[in-house]
Amino acid sequence: MTDEFYMDFALKLAQVSEGQTSPNPTVGAVIVKNGEIIGFGSHLKTGFSHAEVNALKMAGDRAEGSTVYVTLEPCSHYGKTPPCAMALIESRVHRVVIASMDPNPLVAGKGIALLREAGIEVKTGILKEQADELNKAFFHFIQQKQPFVTLKQAITLDGKIAAEAGLDQKITGKEVQEDVHLDREKHDAILVGIGTVIADNPMLTNRYGKTKRQPIRIILDTQLKITPDKKVITDNQSKTWIFTGSKVEKDKIASFTQPHVEIIQLSKPLIEIDELLKILGKRQVSKLYVEGGRAINASFLKSGKVNQLITYVAPKIIGGNSAISMFEDLNVKEMNEAYGLTFQKVAVIGEDLKITSTLK
Amino acid sequence: MTDEFYMDFALKLAQVSEGQTSPNPTVGAVIVKNGEIIGFGSHLKTGFSHAEVNALKMAGDRAEGSTVYVTLEPCSHYGKTPPCAMALIESRVHRVVIASMDPNPLVAGKGIALLREAGIEVKTGILKEQADELNKAFFHFIQQKQPFVTLKQAITLDGKIAAEAGLDQKITGKEVQEDVHLDREKHDAILVGIGTVIADNPMLTNRYGKTKRQPIRIILDTQLKITPDKKVITDNQSKTWIFTGSKVEKDKIASFTQPHVEIIQLSKPLIEIDELLKILGKRQVSKLYVEGGRAINASFLKSGKVNQLITYVAPKIIGGNSAISMFEDLNVKEMNEAYGLTFQKVAVIGEDLKITSTLK
Repeated sequence: MTDEFYMDFALKLAQVSEGQTSPNPTVGAVIVKNGEIIGFGSHLKTGFSHAEVNALKMAGDRAEGSTVYVTLEPCSHYGKTPPCAMALIESRVHRVVIASMDPNPLVAGKGIALLREAGIEVKTGILKEQADELNKAFFHFIQQKQPFVTLKQAITLDGKIAAEAGLDQKITGKEVQEDVHLDREKHDAILVGIGTVIADNPMLTNRYGKTKRQPIRIILDTQLKITPDKKVITDNQSKTWIFTGSKVEKDKIASFTQPHVEIIQLSKPLIEIDELLKILGKRQVSKLYVEGGRAINASFLKSGKVNQLITYVAPKIIGGNSAISMFEDLNVKEMNEAYGLTFQKVAVIGEDLKITSTLK
Repeated sequence: MTDEFYMDFALKLAQVSEGQTSPNPTVGAVIVKNGEIIGFGSHLKTGFSHAEVNALKMAGDRAEGSTVYVTLEPCSHYGKTPPCAMALIESRVHRVVIASMDPNPLVAGKGIALLREAGIEVKTGILKEQADELNKAFFHFIQQKQPFVTLKQAITLDGKIAAEAGLDQKITGKEVQEDVHLDREKHDAILVGIGTVIADNPMLTNRYGKTKRQPIRIILDTQLKITPDKKVITDNQSKTWIFTGSKVEKDKIASFTQPHVEIIQLSKPLIEIDELLKILGKRQVSKLYVEGGRAINASFLKSGKVNQLITYVAPKIIGGNSAISMFEDLNVKEMNEAYGLTFQKVAVIGEDLKITSTLK
C-alpha cells in the first residue's frame, strides 16, 4: 500500500466532521505499522482532542516505530490541548506523512521542525491538493482573519430570479432546499439583507441538515427597519445579529431586548462589507453563507470579498430583459471586464443543477 | 455474457457513424454464435448497406443458428436496399434481439412479424432507452416530417450574451469552438438570423470537426437584406439557403446567381417557423442546429418547435439588467409560466460547461 492510500483514508476521516469543527480545521490521522492500520482518528470539535492524539490513543504502546498519516501539519504550540508534535515524539513514532502545511505563516513548518529535530522522518505534500481543498475556508480565515464568503443563489437557466420585481416565487425543487440546509449547517453564519426579511420573513434555520447545528443569523439592516414580529426576532433557535449603519438612534437599538438578538452598529452611515467581515472575523465566524437578495449579492461581489459561488440552476427559461437578473448592476461595460470564475464542481440535485465556482 | 453486453457493443458500433447517416438512422448489429462474436457491422451512410447486412457478410455461412443483436428493428420494406428482415431469414439465424422499434408507425412491428412468421425467436426492448436516445432526432424526423431542432447558445453564468447591445464579444473558450464544430458536422443544416450575418459575417462551416462534412447554411432574412459580399455568399464550401418573406421582389431574388446559393420565398410577409420547418422536412433536413441570435432563439422557443437546447456556460458574471440576456422577451409573467426543461447532460468543455436540456 502506498502513502496515498493511507492519506486518502485520513482525508475521509477528516471529511466526516466537516462543518462541526469550526473555527478549527477538520483533520484526520491514520497510524500504520508493519502494513497494518493500528489506529486512526479525527478532530471532532473545538476543545476536543486533535486527530493525531485520538489515533495515538487507539494505537497505544504499539505506536512506537509506526508511520503516522495526518492531513494537516501537527501543531507545535500549546492551545486548548498540548502540541501534537510533542505527542508524536513522546510516542516514539518512526515516520510522519503530512498533506497540508499549517496555514498560519507564524507557525508553518514549526511542527515539522520539532519532529525532525527528534529524529522522526517527515514526508510532506501527499494529497496536498485534496487536503487544502477540504480546509480552504479555515486556511482563508487563519490567513485573512475574515470569514470565507460563499454566495448562494438560485436562478433559471437564463440567469433570472423572478419574472418581475417583487414576485418572489420558488425557482428550484425541494431537493435543493434540503441541500441548502446541509450547506447551512456547515457554516458559522447565514447572511441576508433586510429586503429578504421583509419580503419573505424567513426562519433562516437548518431544518433538513444532518445535525441540529444552527448557524448564526445575520441581517444587514442599514436603517434598522426590522420589526419585532419577524421570525428571526421571535424565534430563538439561533442567535440573530443585526448590523446597522451609524445613523440609527440608540433608543431604537435598545428596544430589541430579546437575549438571542444583538444589534451591532457599524462606524459609517452605510454598511461596508470590509468592516462587516473584520468584525465577523473577530467574532470567530470563519465561514459565511450569503443568501441574498440581489443587492446584497452585488455589494459582496463588488467588495472583492467573495470566495465562492454556489449557483443552483433550475431547468426553466423566463426570457426577456425585464425579468429580474441574479445580480444588480456591477458596472461591467464589456465581456472582458466580466467577473471571472473557475467552475469547481457540478452536481445534479433533483431536477436542478448545483454549480460551485470560485472567483479568479 | 448477457444480451445487454452484446447490445451495448452494437450501440457502440452505431455511435461510430453518428452524424454521417442522415437522413437514415445510425444502427449497429452484432452476431453471436456459441458465445463467440462471428460478425458485426453498422450502417455508415445512406445508400450503403444496412448494419445487419454488413454483419451477415462478415459472418458468412456461419450465421446459421446464430443470435443477431441489432439496435433498431430490421426493416421490412424494399428501399434503396432489400429488407433486412428477409436477409436475416435467408441466413437462417436462430434468434434476433432488438433495442428500438421502427419509429414509422406504418411499418413498426412488421420486421418483427416477418421474422416470427419465419420461426425466428425475437426479443425486444434490450437497452431500448439508450438506442432511442441515439436516434431521437431521426425518430422525430420520421414521425413529424420536420427536423429535430437544437438551439445552441453561449452565455455567462448569469445568462448574459453581451454587456450591451451590439457588443458581440467572445464569451466561451476555444475548446467550445471546437465542440460546436463537432456538433455542426452532426447536423444537416445550421441556421442563423440575418442580424448575425450582418454583425459577424460568419462562414458557418465545420472547420474543427472530425470530418469535412459541411452542413447546409440557412439564413432567415425576411426582407433579403443580405449583401453579396457576405462569406456565406462568396464562399461555396457548402450550400446556402436564404429564406425570405413573401414581400421580397423577384428581381432582387434573381440577382443571387451563385450556384450554391438558393433563395426560398415563404408564403407570408413574415417568416413563420412552422412553414420553414415543413419545407426543411421535405428537403430531408432531419437535424437543424440553430445558432441565434437572440431574436431567432426567442421565435423558435415561442413556436414550440425546439427539441433540445445546448447551452455553453462561461465562468463569468456580467450583472445588471441592462446587459443582454440570452432570450428576447418570451411573455413569461411569472415563474410557473416559465418554459420548462429537463437537464439531460452536463459536460466540462475547457473552462466552460455544456448543458444539454430538452423541452418539457
